[in-house]
Amino acid sequence: MILGRVIGEVTSTINHPFYDATKQLVVEKTDAAGKATGDYVIAVDIVGAGVGELVLVLDEGNGARQVLGSNDAPVRSVVVGIVDAINPSG
Amino acid sequence: MILGRVIGEVTSTINHPFYDATKQLVVEKTDAAGKATGDYVIAVDIVGAGVGELVLVLDEGNGARQVLGSNDAPVRSVVVGIVDAINPSG
Amino acid sequence: MILGRVIGEVTSTINHPFYDATKQLVVEKTDAAGKATGDYVIAVDIVGAGVGELVLVLDEGNGARQVLGSNDAPVRSVVVGIVDAINPSG
Amino acid sequence: MILGRVIGEVTSTINHPFYDATKQLVVEKTDAAGKATGDYVIAVDIVGAGVGELVLVLDEGNGARQVLGSNDAPVRSVVVGIVDAINPSG
Amino acid sequence: MILGRVIGEVTSTINHPFYDATKQLVVEKTDAAGKATGDYVIAVDIVGAGVGELVLVLDEGNGARQVLGSNDAPVRSVVVGIVDAINPSG
Repeated sequence: MILGRVIGEVTSTINHPFYDATKQLVVEKTDAAGKATGDYVIAVDIVGAGVGELVLVLDEGNGARQVLGSNDAPVRSVVVGIVDAINPSG
Repeated sequence: MILGRVIGEVTSTINHPFYDATKQLVVEKTDAAGKATGDYVIAVDIVGAGVGELVLVLDEGNGARQVLGSNDAPVRSVVVGIVDAINPSG
Repeated sequence: MILGRVIGEVTSTINHPFYDATKQLVVEKTDAAGKATGDYVIAVDIVGAGVGELVLVLDEGNGARQVLGSNDAPVRSVVVGIVDAINPSG
Repeated sequence: MILGRVIGEVTSTINHPFYDATKQLVVEKTDAAGKATGDYVIAVDIVGAGVGELVLVLDEGNGARQVLGSNDAPVRSVVVGIVDAINPSG
Repeated sequence: MILGRVIGEVTSTINHPFYDATKQLVVEKTDAAGKATGDYVIAVDIVGAGVGELVLVLDEGNGARQVLGSNDAPVRSVVVGIVDAINPSG
């Protein structure tokens, strides 16, 4: 899993019907301290994350489909948590 | 999932028969603002995307096969949507 | 599989319920000699690894779910061992 | 899927028996215009591709096993087509 | 699949029990000519590869588990062959 910050949302009209019912967030990947790296991923939201929030992203298809309760969802990346803190005390 | 722009199509005569019935697009990967990164992926089209269009690409085999309604398609990447907008308001 | 060093923990309140019962470690990826590379991964702990320890990370979803005894856990990366030594005698 | 050019073949005597019956090609990855990138992948051939030919490579294990008609083949990458043209007219 | 050279072994006492019965090799990734790239992977050995040998590595979990005859092994990377030659005649 990786950390990222929500920076926007992708909208589309012509798409696989799965995407009509979900929100596709643009998540900028961050380093381990929460600083932007310049890379990004498009991830389906399941936690109601908003722009600016630091999130935990699962980037793996089979797990993503389980999260969405679907065996056939065309999805690889899902926002699975909003990060409270990155705690160096482990 | 990632964003990309359609820049062409790959044609082949000698191939796995699956590819005879599909269109393989050359999709240049873009950054979160839709700007080309120099990298690319070959993706099967399911939405009728044309050259120059910004698209959403699913890059994961099991989900790609579900999109194509096949358990055995030799495919990893599928164009699953044409992007209307990348909306920074999340 | 890869090597990494535990540098912290991610906490979150709003998340997929799976993460309520697990510890998500921030693991800095290292090179083959155990030196930090600057990259990282968020991995679920199953061995009780602490900050500073060099660990073995499995970064693959289906195997990660088997380790956790779950068919539907939203997880890709798991800390599966604490490294005693990287032995050049093979 | 990606594009690449066949530059050789890997031979081995001590190996998993699966590889005794297949040809493992060294495929140099190319950019979207067919120009070498310096990176490569070892891929099982199913189309009779020869050195110098531009090919389409599927780099995903479950699909690769389906192509080979096997549920347990130790394979991730397969050459699935010989490219006739990269057509910019899409 | 990729090529690499065995440069050592990782040992651990506190780990998932699967690793008690296997040898985890440190494999330095090489380019298509067998030259070290600086990157590496930790891979389970099934062919008795020793330090200094050039090997073929399968880096994909489901295939890796099949090689090991296990449905639940926490493994992604396996050394599946010792390379005799990289033959440019294809």
